[in-house]
Amino acid sequence: MLINCAVYQDGKKLADIRKEEIHDYLSRPGCFVWVALKDATPDELAEMQREFGLHELAVEDARHGHERPKLEEYGDSLFAVVHTVEAAGEELKVGEVNIFVGPNYVLSVRNRTEQGFTNVRQRTEREPHLLRHGAGFVLYALIDTVVDRYFPVLEAFEDELERLEERIFASTPARENIEALYGLKQKLMTLRHASGPLQETAGKLYGGRVPELCAGSQEYFRDVYDHLVRINQSIDSLREMLTTAISVNLSLITVQENETVKRLAAYAALVAVPTMVAGVYGMNFNYMPELHWKWGYPFALGLMVGIDTYLFFRFRRAKWL
Amino acid sequence: MLINCAVYQDGKKLADIRKEEIHDYLSRPGCFVWVALKDATPDELAEMQREFGLHELAVEDARHGHERPKLEEYGDSLFAVVHTVEAAGEELKVGEVNIFVGPNYVLSVRNRTEQGFTNVRQRTEREPHLLRHGAGFVLYALIDTVVDRYFPVLEAFEDELERLEERIFASTPARENIEALYGLKQKLMTLRHASGPLQETAGKLYGGRVPELCAGSQEYFRDVYDHLVRINQSIDSLREMLTTAISVNLSLITVQENETVKRLAAYAALVAVPTMVAGVYGMNFNYMPELHWKWGYPFALGLMVGIDTYLFFRFRRAKWL
Amino acid sequence: MLINCAVYQDGKKLADIRKEEIHDYLSRPGCFVWVALKDATPDELAEMQREFGLHELAVEDARHGHERPKLEEYGDSLFAVVHTVEAAGEELKVGEVNIFVGPNYVLSVRNRTEQGFTNVRQRTEREPHLLRHGAGFVLYALIDTVVDRYFPVLEAFEDELERLEERIFASTPARENIEALYGLKQKLMTLRHASGPLQETAGKLYGGRVPELCAGSQEYFRDVYDHLVRINQSIDSLREMLTTAISVNLSLITVQENETVKRLAAYAALVAVPTMVAGVYGMNFNYMPELHWKWGYPFALGLMVGIDTYLFFRFRRAKWL
Amino acid sequence: MLINCAVYQDGKKLADIRKEEIHDYLSRPGCFVWVALKDATPDELAEMQREFGLHELAVEDARHGHERPKLEEYGDSLFAVVHTVEAAGEELKVGEVNIFVGPNYVLSVRNRTEQGFTNVRQRTEREPHLLRHGAGFVLYALIDTVVDRYFPVLEAFEDELERLEERIFASTPARENIEALYGLKQKLMTLRHASGPLQETAGKLYGGRVPELCAGSQEYFRDVYDHLVRINQSIDSLREMLTTAISVNLSLITVQENETVKRLAAYAALVAVPTMVAGVYGMNFNYMPELHWKWGYPFALGLMVGIDTYLFFRFRRAKWL
Amino acid sequence: MLINCAVYQDGKKLADIRKEEIHDYLSRPGCFVWVALKDATPDELAEMQREFGLHELAVEDARHGHERPKLEEYGDSLFAVVHTVEAAGEELKVGEVNIFVGPNYVLSVRNRTEQGFTNVRQRTEREPHLLRHGAGFVLYALIDTVVDRYFPVLEAFEDELERLEERIFASTPARENIEALYGLKQKLMTLRHASGPLQETAGKLYGGRVPELCAGSQEYFRDVYDHLVRINQSIDSLREMLTTAISVNLSLITVQENETVKRLAAYAALVAVPTMVAGVYGMNFNYMPELHWKWGYPFALGLMVGIDTYLFFRFRRAKWL
Repeated sequence: MLINCAVYQDGKKLADIRKEEIHDYLSRPGCFVWVALKDATPDELAEMQREFGLHELAVEDARHGHERPKLEEYGDSLFAVVHTVEAAGEELKVGEVNIFVGPNYVLSVRNRTEQGFTNVRQRTEREPHLLRHGAGFVLYALIDTVVDRYFPVLEAFEDELERLEERIFASTPARENIEALYGLKQKLMTLRHASGPLQETAGKLYGGRVPELCAGSQEYFRDVYDHLVRINQSIDSLREMLTTAISVNLSLITVQENETVKRLAAYAALVAVPTMVAGVYGMNFNYMPELHWKWGYPFALGLMVGIDTYLFFRFRRAKWL
Repeated sequence: MLINCAVYQDGKKLADIRKEEIHDYLSRPGCFVWVALKDATPDELAEMQREFGLHELAVEDARHGHERPKLEEYGDSLFAVVHTVEAAGEELKVGEVNIFVGPNYVLSVRNRTEQGFTNVRQRTEREPHLLRHGAGFVLYALIDTVVDRYFPVLEAFEDELERLEERIFASTPARENIEALYGLKQKLMTLRHASGPLQETAGKLYGGRVPELCAGSQEYFRDVYDHLVRINQSIDSLREMLTTAISVNLSLITVQENETVKRLAAYAALVAVPTMVAGVYGMNFNYMPELHWKWGYPFALGLMVGIDTYLFFRFRRAKWL
Repeated sequence: MLINCAVYQDGKKLADIRKEEIHDYLSRPGCFVWVALKDATPDELAEMQREFGLHELAVEDARHGHERPKLEEYGDSLFAVVHTVEAAGEELKVGEVNIFVGPNYVLSVRNRTEQGFTNVRQRTEREPHLLRHGAGFVLYALIDTVVDRYFPVLEAFEDELERLEERIFASTPARENIEALYGLKQKLMTLRHASGPLQETAGKLYGGRVPELCAGSQEYFRDVYDHLVRINQSIDSLREMLTTAISVNLSLITVQENETVKRLAAYAALVAVPTMVAGVYGMNFNYMPELHWKWGYPFALGLMVGIDTYLFFRFRRAKWL
Repeated sequence: MLINCAVYQDGKKLADIRKEEIHDYLSRPGCFVWVALKDATPDELAEMQREFGLHELAVEDARHGHERPKLEEYGDSLFAVVHTVEAAGEELKVGEVNIFVGPNYVLSVRNRTEQGFTNVRQRTEREPHLLRHGAGFVLYALIDTVVDRYFPVLEAFEDELERLEERIFASTPARENIEALYGLKQKLMTLRHASGPLQETAGKLYGGRVPELCAGSQEYFRDVYDHLVRINQSIDSLREMLTTAISVNLSLITVQENETVKRLAAYAALVAVPTMVAGVYGMNFNYMPELHWKWGYPFALGLMVGIDTYLFFRFRRAKWL
Repeated sequence: MLINCAVYQDGKKLADIRKEEIHDYLSRPGCFVWVALKDATPDELAEMQREFGLHELAVEDARHGHERPKLEEYGDSLFAVVHTVEAAGEELKVGEVNIFVGPNYVLSVRNRTEQGFTNVRQRTEREPHLLRHGAGFVLYALIDTVVDRYFPVLEAFEDELERLEERIFASTPARENIEALYGLKQKLMTLRHASGPLQETAGKLYGGRVPELCAGSQEYFRDVYDHLVRINQSIDSLREMLTTAISVNLSLITVQENETVKRLAAYAALVAVPTMVAGVYGMNFNYMPELHWKWGYPFALGLMVGIDTYLFFRFRRAKWL
């Protein structure tokens, strides 16, 4: 579905145009066309391929989707794949944005994403001195927006880990904690699948040999790169802390088991000892003086209660109960 | 066994030929011969070695089999070993394809594989503009096909892990889960043995210094490389998740042990307390008023049942039962 | 908030100046202005941006804060972000220092830090032969001070690990140990987040291609780099020892569980055996000679005590009690 | 001890010679002398040092032994240390081969090895067209033979792991499994100590800057390198699988513990319940109607047996027994 | 404290000199002065700094101590820090040697070490043809000696691990084993702190760009480097084996727990069953024929003993006892 199609010159928007007019503007010097598609059909892709002369392999990747984040050069044009990651309740929703950039065009195709990029267009149109850098700057603005949206996701993970840490040490049901830790790990891996390869990609766009198209926006791409480094280092820290949390959790479960066993044993003792005493006075010897005492029975009961009271406080003191 | 033997010129098939004719066509400029063998005997290999002038070491590798995936240059010809991985029920079946490529010939020898490469031949013949790139493009088409067949295997692993995750948290018998996790790990390592070294190999075929033969198909080899990067990153994620799953599983087993102990202890209490009460009324004191009450016995039984009922609901509430 | 603003020439302080005078001195050759801000407001930053002609992206980073430690070149000026780490009781407090350096100015902005950098200013003013290197040397002095403050933090960690190790092996409550080990790990990761990226940064300031500004202070930056290498290696060692400590702790908990079970079993035996004996003499057979013995009852009690005494010493010897 | 001493020219053996004659042949152009020593004494080494002009440090390494596998260039001559690994029953026997190679000589000294290298000599003599490459080819042949002998050792490890995996899941005594897994790990590390550094070494002998001596045999050294890569990757896989196997084994032990506890609890219940019933009918109430029934006693016994039978089948169904 | 001060020329010792004479000899061409200090005071260091013109930063490092092993170039002079590791009973003692080397001097300052370097001086004086290489060779000799002293420490670790392995599998008290494994790990990390960075350092002294001073002794530094590689690989192997040993130990403790539980359960059964039988014959039914048998009591006792004997042998056979 076509979302937007406009022509820009000298950092300013000339006009919204129809698909059919693209061709006319492509040949005008100093102009570039910016087309945004959403969940494009194969037909739409084929049309754009003809319009902009896109490379067969790039279009095929966009058609099939499920590519890893990457950046490829085809002559003087670029093809970038980036993944969007959005929180959808407890789940993560991974979308894909395919960006084709040439000297005089930008074509972005987003699939399976909730949030669009209208704010990117607005932001770039508000800064004509930057947009003047051309199509390369639009590429930056798109990637930057995707990366910026990773931060809240990552922060939600950090919050969740913090919450889980508290729960682990607060002896909530262990089973749920484990499940939650594992679920967090899964989501973390999903985010990493998006942000890890993108770091490599961004690294190719500043310093060293940079594609012609992005040469003017290098400092901006370095900024994106820095953000991705920060994200990926935070992910790695989170992974390490998660692994530690899982093994610490196992230790705590074992400690708890130990405590359970002690508690049970204490209670068992409180029952076993009176049973033994009762057993003794249940013996059938002819000569058992206590049996004939008037206060024998209360004495026996008292003995039982007395021993149990003593044991109870000893166990208490030893923190078994 | 000879599967196929044909001559191509200018991206089009000239003719199927007999082995004996190979020699004639090798000297014709702009032509290349494409021979496919299956489970070749040493004699067949020797014949091909004479025909195409293959390097001794390459032929020896093909004869012995069980080489790791690799790519070797011998002068202006290439020798590639790739592994096929096919799911055969619960097991994985690893085959081997040896590919000899020269300016005017392609010889592929596949061993221990179920699926053949006839579809590769058909596909390449349908795209004469690509086949025009010559023998290097055939090498690409063969490797690409092998790599594409890794994907369903990998997806089957991902599905299996997902199924196992559900089973782990759904308290199915732990022993089976462990065995299944271990089995999945083994299969994962098998796939990695095939795909890991192949990534290195593919990396040598685009960018930087590329063998003459593949120079025209670089963008295609980059595509294969990207696929392998994706596969290997997925394998690494799977490995990490498997390791986590194994340790999470251990935690769950320990939790379950804890629960078992509690449950058992609760039942033990339900038996031990009446036993104690019975012991008390089994004592032989002369003066035990309860013994002489008319309702002493029902009272004692009632006491037992009462205490047990109380305990039962307490244990229930504490989720021990 | 403006903390300090002074002009230096030839390694000596010329004068403390007002913000408004900065402009006058910037154009004087051989001079540089050193301004220190604390928790700067956006307005103050904007003012400085105008004054020194700072790059938009750098100022934006300083405004938002929460950047990772890094060093960026903008033309002939540098922008550095370093993190301060201070112990605040049991917690770590992470602050941020943004340093803008140009040929004729140094601007440091510190956020969320307790300790200031007045001692840096004093130290550098005491060594005019070094300060003569110019703004680059001030950059060194600031980073060096931040790094030097990591050492006591790290040493506190090492002491804490040592204390924890003693506690682990001295069977203090396991739960607290685990929590303390986990907490130490968290703090370690926090320090690493500050010191890890800073090592990379410092590495760019000596040897190889060095920004013009720091060329004269290379040997000093190598010194900082060496300190950071030492810190990061110590952190890695600590991490490894912590991981080992956690798993060793789990082993010890399991050992303790084993000992608890044995001890409980020993006590259970001391109760169960007399109960059995009492059970035997509680049987109602007509012909049980012991029952009619005069010393039957004491004999039975003696038997119980005797067996228990024997068991007690056997358990003792086997270290079960 | 001198094993062999022969002169080669143009790929063919000229003659077996005496030690004393070495000197004469060294000066003949196009000739090289191949000497094989076994467990050489310091005197023999000193003699060879004089004869061939070996470097002091190399000879010292050979004298002391216990060097790690390595390759060193001394001017136009090479000194290689490779380790042989042989299975000696359950143990591994690690030997050492020191190889000195110059333009006109090869001196191999093997220590603590069972198998010799006579087959290497025979093999190379059968292939004069290869031996014509000179001393470098002999170096290849020796290293290749050592590496080829790693394969059966490695395969024995793989078989042993497979056997252990079966045993782990077949609930043989856990203690033995653990000991066997640990032993396998130890042997694996021993092999790795031999093969790991040798890979680096072999990597220096093909591609890039190659010592003059080995320039003609590059393709052969690449072959050795490939074998070592394969070996080391298999070792790494084995290590990973071993680590997994150890942790899986721990899980299985815990599962088994769980099962043991359940089984024991079931048996305990089968004893405790009749004891409780007996306790009830052992109470001394005056009015207990059952006691006076004619069939009271069989009824009580029947009750016990009945409850136990019921419990037994319930436990069976729940797989506790 | 000054240990030694001598002048060397042409590989031979000219004379022992007084500190005051150093200056005279420094200007004599072809000479170099070798000074050895021990636990130098700041004053002594300051004196040497003046004498040899040492760099401020290097001297400061020597004064403070606790630097990590490193090598720094200051113009044409070198500053090296190496750590000595000596076994002091169960503990490790880490000392530090600071070596300043210039074209015409060597100054070594050792702190907190037991063993001195007199044997280095003797050894080098015995080999004038090597000492002729100048101050660089003395640097080699000092580092080589320090490294050689790591070997016995490392071997002691390997022996200790072997001893611990035996103890682990020989069921000595688990707690001690764990403590010993942890202690070994700590010592290993200490050694690694010394040997790890030194490897990097040594690597800078041969091949590639080598400081002028060491150019003549490259082959010797390569030898040191090889030793350090060997040491560090052994340390890594030991670490890996230690980690494995710790986890294997945990498995064994769990196995032992399992065995303990079984043994206890068996003993419990031996007590519980007679208690049940006694309970049955302690019931008060009017009609219990056994009670009136003459041999009822022996029969009951026999029953108890019989069942216990049967159980005992069954448990024995099942290896529970």
